[in-house]
Amino acid sequence: MQTPPTGEVKLAHLDAHTFADWISSGTPTVLVPVGALEQHGPHLPMGTDAILAERIAREVAASTGALVAPPITYGYRSQQKSGGGDHLVGTTSLDAATLIGITRNLVRGLLDQGVRHVVLVNGHYENYQFLYEGVDLAIRDLGLEAEDERCVLLLSYWDYVSEQTLDAVYQGSFPGWDVEHGGVLETALMLHLEPELVRMDRAVDHEPAQLPRFDRLPVVPGRTPATGCLSAPRGADAAKGRLLFEQVTRDLAEDLTAELGRRPASSLAAERVG
Amino acid sequence: MQTPPTGEVKLAHLDAHTFADWISSGTPTVLVPVGALEQHGPHLPMGTDAILAERIAREVAASTGALVAPPITYGYRSQQKSGGGDHLVGTTSLDAATLIGITRNLVRGLLDQGVRHVVLVNGHYENYQFLYEGVDLAIRDLGLEAEDERCVLLLSYWDYVSEQTLDAVYQGSFPGWDVEHGGVLETALMLHLEPELVRMDRAVDHEPAQLPRFDRLPVVPGRTPATGCLSAPRGADAAKGRLLFEQVTRDLAEDLTAELGRRPASSLAAERVG
Amino acid sequence: MQTPPTGEVKLAHLDAHTFADWISSGTPTVLVPVGALEQHGPHLPMGTDAILAERIAREVAASTGALVAPPITYGYRSQQKSGGGDHLVGTTSLDAATLIGITRNLVRGLLDQGVRHVVLVNGHYENYQFLYEGVDLAIRDLGLEAEDERCVLLLSYWDYVSEQTLDAVYQGSFPGWDVEHGGVLETALMLHLEPELVRMDRAVDHEPAQLPRFDRLPVVPGRTPATGCLSAPRGADAAKGRLLFEQVTRDLAEDLTAELGRRPASSLAAERVG
Amino acid sequence: MQTPPTGEVKLAHLDAHTFADWISSGTPTVLVPVGALEQHGPHLPMGTDAILAERIAREVAASTGALVAPPITYGYRSQQKSGGGDHLVGTTSLDAATLIGITRNLVRGLLDQGVRHVVLVNGHYENYQFLYEGVDLAIRDLGLEAEDERCVLLLSYWDYVSEQTLDAVYQGSFPGWDVEHGGVLETALMLHLEPELVRMDRAVDHEPAQLPRFDRLPVVPGRTPATGCLSAPRGADAAKGRLLFEQVTRDLAEDLTAELGRRPASSLAAERVG
Amino acid sequence: MQTPPTGEVKLAHLDAHTFADWISSGTPTVLVPVGALEQHGPHLPMGTDAILAERIAREVAASTGALVAPPITYGYRSQQKSGGGDHLVGTTSLDAATLIGITRNLVRGLLDQGVRHVVLVNGHYENYQFLYEGVDLAIRDLGLEAEDERCVLLLSYWDYVSEQTLDAVYQGSFPGWDVEHGGVLETALMLHLEPELVRMDRAVDHEPAQLPRFDRLPVVPGRTPATGCLSAPRGADAAKGRLLFEQVTRDLAEDLTAELGRRPASSLAAERVG
Amino acid sequence: MQTPPTGEVKLAHLDAHTFADWISSGTPTVLVPVGALEQHGPHLPMGTDAILAERIAREVAASTGALVAPPITYGYRSQQKSGGGDHLVGTTSLDAATLIGITRNLVRGLLDQGVRHVVLVNGHYENYQFLYEGVDLAIRDLGLEAEDERCVLLLSYWDYVSEQTLDAVYQGSFPGWDVEHGGVLETALMLHLEPELVRMDRAVDHEPAQLPRFDRLPVVPGRTPATGCLSAPRGADAAKGRLLFEQVTRDLAEDLTAELGRRPASSLAAERVG
Repeated sequence: MQTPPTGEVKLAHLDAHTFADWISSGTPTVLVPVGALEQHGPHLPMGTDAILAERIAREVAASTGALVAPPITYGYRSQQKSGGGDHLVGTTSLDAATLIGITRNLVRGLLDQGVRHVVLVNGHYENYQFLYEGVDLAIRDLGLEAEDERCVLLLSYWDYVSEQTLDAVYQGSFPGWDVEHGGVLETALMLHLEPELVRMDRAVDHEPAQLPRFDRLPVVPGRTPATGCLSAPRGADAAKGRLLFEQVTRDLAEDLTAELGRRPASSLAAERVG
Repeated sequence: MQTPPTGEVKLAHLDAHTFADWISSGTPTVLVPVGALEQHGPHLPMGTDAILAERIAREVAASTGALVAPPITYGYRSQQKSGGGDHLVGTTSLDAATLIGITRNLVRGLLDQGVRHVVLVNGHYENYQFLYEGVDLAIRDLGLEAEDERCVLLLSYWDYVSEQTLDAVYQGSFPGWDVEHGGVLETALMLHLEPELVRMDRAVDHEPAQLPRFDRLPVVPGRTPATGCLSAPRGADAAKGRLLFEQVTRDLAEDLTAELGRRPASSLAAERVG
Repeated sequence: MQTPPTGEVKLAHLDAHTFADWISSGTPTVLVPVGALEQHGPHLPMGTDAILAERIAREVAASTGALVAPPITYGYRSQQKSGGGDHLVGTTSLDAATLIGITRNLVRGLLDQGVRHVVLVNGHYENYQFLYEGVDLAIRDLGLEAEDERCVLLLSYWDYVSEQTLDAVYQGSFPGWDVEHGGVLETALMLHLEPELVRMDRAVDHEPAQLPRFDRLPVVPGRTPATGCLSAPRGADAAKGRLLFEQVTRDLAEDLTAELGRRPASSLAAERVG
Repeated sequence: MQTPPTGEVKLAHLDAHTFADWISSGTPTVLVPVGALEQHGPHLPMGTDAILAERIAREVAASTGALVAPPITYGYRSQQKSGGGDHLVGTTSLDAATLIGITRNLVRGLLDQGVRHVVLVNGHYENYQFLYEGVDLAIRDLGLEAEDERCVLLLSYWDYVSEQTLDAVYQGSFPGWDVEHGGVLETALMLHLEPELVRMDRAVDHEPAQLPRFDRLPVVPGRTPATGCLSAPRGADAAKGRLLFEQVTRDLAEDLTAELGRRPASSLAAERVG
Repeated sequence: MQTPPTGEVKLAHLDAHTFADWISSGTPTVLVPVGALEQHGPHLPMGTDAILAERIAREVAASTGALVAPPITYGYRSQQKSGGGDHLVGTTSLDAATLIGITRNLVRGLLDQGVRHVVLVNGHYENYQFLYEGVDLAIRDLGLEAEDERCVLLLSYWDYVSEQTLDAVYQGSFPGWDVEHGGVLETALMLHLEPELVRMDRAVDHEPAQLPRFDRLPVVPGRTPATGCLSAPRGADAAKGRLLFEQVTRDLAEDLTAELGRRPASSLAAERVG
Repeated sequence: MQTPPTGEVKLAHLDAHTFADWISSGTPTVLVPVGALEQHGPHLPMGTDAILAERIAREVAASTGALVAPPITYGYRSQQKSGGGDHLVGTTSLDAATLIGITRNLVRGLLDQGVRHVVLVNGHYENYQFLYEGVDLAIRDLGLEAEDERCVLLLSYWDYVSEQTLDAVYQGSFPGWDVEHGGVLETALMLHLEPELVRMDRAVDHEPAQLPRFDRLPVVPGRTPATGCLSAPRGADAAKGRLLFEQVTRDLAEDLTAELGRRPASSLAAERVG
């Protein structure tokens, strides 16, 4: 499978006739980046999650012959323990029903047109379960069974950061993905991919937020650091961003190729034996 | 009111602290472009509606000191009489409940943070009534009354094309906004704003589609021209696009300034007298 | 196809056994009038939209052998630019989800019983898109495909007013369908069909409302004329009402007969050739 | 409180200005009849439930100075044990969410305009609980508390049939309200109120249906008598209908007057003492 | 059909492998008890409805080879005329949409796994119609037709109290099921089944509540007896509870065995003949 | 605050008058256990998650003077990576909307009655985000602000397992919470708390499941071990269960006491200083 001759990976930039030809010429895969509009501290833009998810999706699409649909740019409510909280200015969120609805409609719509595989590339921690529900409902709407060639993959990009990369980037001080909000990972990736949108002169340095083991609602605002970052971007630079980006997109591309390149039936048999 | 010192009008490119400062420094207005992912014939990209709505919103924001939120890039189902129909490959749509939900969430979320005015700039004909319902529900959620300083405006950009511009662009052959899908208006605007995304060598020429006075579902596919365009882009060029763009954005900016620049109470009194 | 021997066109007035016989004897079509309970100025009753939609449906049914289901008497919220606004006393409206739900249930329920064609005859401008969504969802629920003999038509009756009639009725001063609320069209039709419900002694005369190109919510009440009419019923009389009624019902009946009297497959082929 | 000078009790037949005057002149009460479109055997029209609810509401309104809103003509699904079942041709029903939505919208809309009391007059057994939920949600939406002057009453008209009337009409053979579907009560009332819609020559005679103590879904169709009536209209005549109608409307009017004519606070104190 | 060799009737206490074996070995039936968390006066626990429904279900399951799913322990809002009202402390309820959703999910989920029959055993008056709607929606989701072997039964346990038992328990003073809230039936059953949860020293004695023929919302609190009981548990004892329990569970078991032990097709034919 | 004099911690076992007294005598806290009905391998009962959540809640309630509401016994769909998947027999799940609805109703209902704090104690991994959404919606319904004394806590009990306990229980082979399904934690706890429901003779031993970094839907069934356990209960015994139970309930009780025992305003000030 190849991207269209134009080399364009953005689905929204293709005309429909070219898209229709592409669909009928192989086992078409469409990646849907999912982000949020959320405060990310004083040094990162509010669109960070959508920007990173889309850039990763485009890189993976380019190397695997897939296309990238327009990103879902608004996400589920920011939660205090993973994003600082939905009460902070700059965070504009969707409720669960709406995010589920978007996902259900897009998955169903894409598969109905002939797309074989839809891959949701998530960049906002809080989205995951609602994306899952949207996919599950779409799968039921379409009546897909385990043996169907059509399927949906759902993933968060940071789950593809390898142990080795983690060590290289954090050098032993990895604070956990939950407080990686406005911290090293996102800052480094943005410095590599969109440096003009990062204002390192405004970056803060403080210890990772200490948050309770429970969620409390209404939130106690004082528990979120005044910066809005749950951990500091201490040590983030473009080189680390490049390392992260290249390793993640390479592994993700390999994973998709392996997973989607075989028939479910055979993969199933293989796994049963193994 | 002015855009932030950086000159950036894209809300998603600002950091949250700069955004918070901006909000607290005047009567902040945020424009939300709304489009669709929809087939637009063989010469225009599928993202045309969102691209145009966003470009118009950015121009208006720049001249009025407003900001532009990330666009709603998926819209309500394409209908045969205004967009060719939802059965065509390349069209990926949302159902009513989801589009209403997005609108309700965004309007409520923005006004809750301190934004004074939200302006929905629509670029996809079929969206309008669902955006309206989303706004209405948000207004009720917030308990806004007629005298409130906070308000929402909702408009479709083509309603700002003046008679004079219409004559200049169509020279007497205006087919009606309903069949302006993939036709002169959209093609000219795209040639002015995003020429590299238009493939005029693939543009078709045919008479405007003749569609019945009723909607029929399931649609009779044969009623949509095979091109997917409801009227041809005959005569569209970048100069006409520039004329359209400049007139529409100028009039829209003036309208917003006049409407949002006075207090509702006084405007109301004035109108009652008049 | 004929109406039952009793000559009754109101479905609610038939007994179920007679209805069942009628269904199994041809290609049964049921018309569903859709209106609203909405202020219509000081001279027209609040039920005007439902009354007109039902009278038109009954006339068309009588001449085509169809039946008329009980009207949907409550409609979507009145909007300022087409009905004066939902804040006016006398206007009692449904939200979008409810009107969509009614439509979806009725369409599915009628087609499930063996009705072949359902025709929604709309008399309230604001309803249209929500009726469309209800039909679309019902069509998906039933799994109808383009080639199915069962189908739904959706229309607003004023779209059947011919150019010629328009000229005869308005004599050059047609203000546009959007402000035809409590104006010449509705008043004339009511004078022809239900004269005892019209109080021409209370009719007002003023210029058509000048409304902005945007919708604003919450509405600025002062923009709606104090009468509640968006244009005046100046010159409306029963003769014009009769002209409108006869032309519209005749053309509508012809259109339905032509559209529903042939098999979709053949019509499709014909149109593809043409 | 009086009905408007015109003597008209149908809200839909009044103009909005007259209605607004009426609202501001007392403690306005609006009755909303609720019915169904449901098979009622071979001798009664499918609209029986809505017809009876509306006729009763109009009579009560005329004697108490209230108005009658347009009836809700479609009801909740017919159930086998009270209406024969939703699988029978001639029965076109709403699902729960839709009927709840209609009720919620109407109650909220009427009370929001200044109506003091809304009275839902139910004529279709299966509706009751869904009307209740719609009222409950509207009450919560409006934030009404126990001491509020605004309130909603909900009732089924047969609950107002007195013991004495029951004896006179059934003479000892009352089969229970649950199987009073197409039986003596409805037939007698229709013979009194709308004799031209009843076809007694087609009326059947059979024993009341013997139905299990459980509901089974999908229904076993054979359990519903082939007539669709759950009990026979044996002995129904117009005189009995008149007796029923006059007693029920008189008692209902007295009940409403007593309940709505005092302030809740005082009634509450009185009841606490007593 | 037999319960698993362990003798365990609680589905939640079995492991999934044992359950899977049980499902594949016959015509498996699962009973789902449905209750509420609702005030029941000063002498009965708030969980009474769920406790009784579950105990009855377990007894029936043990004698018919069925299993019992975990009870639905929260029910629809308590209504004044059958449970005292939702405003009373100790009553924690679900709205209609949620109870419908639970029922729909459980019915669909159980039938999808291979369960042949699901029996909802209701112990809270207000639940019934919402359970019905949930079942109806699940049946539609699954596309079950009248002839399908899979089916759902829905019942309230008090509908199985025989005339004879009624006479023995109430000795002529039966107040009606509607006001049997915290009264003789529930108290006697609890004294038989869970005596340690009953505090007869706190039981009150008063006449049955006199409630109007309408529902009023917001409720007039003074209409509910201060005890919260709609009738007194006068004369309730464990012996009567045992009588009720044994008769109801025996008749219910017989009914289920007869109904579910034959094929729908034949039962249908039999009934048509009879 | 103390539990009622009876020593009963189960809210459903109290009568409403005792509950009302308890509410008005301090700062009442109610814990709501949340579980699932889900396959847990051949050795654990399907109700494991609800059983453990309830037992932990009861222990914590007893030591802090709180009460325990009836558990939510059905949970969100089992996912392959944390529970094996929703396709496995024995797993009966709720969709997102329903679980959100239950949570929203219970939180709102309890706080509305005067309960000051609601604590959701989760025992099923997949539930968390949907519980969060339900709480968030309830908080908005009630209009609670950050400074309100009423609040909700939400937690999963395994987040209270200390590092020290983890080492003692797993001795270096902790596989991660995600695959702790039917493994050491749940088995040990059940052996301590409900030994008669565990069948260790049926326990399996295998390596933890190797699952991809993405979710795939429809699931590839072969990826879930045939046992249904994602990790083996190797080494689980009652002593470890006791250790886990005692440490978790002790720390949880301490956390709740500290969090809920101070006024939010002061805690907030303290945290802002610190």
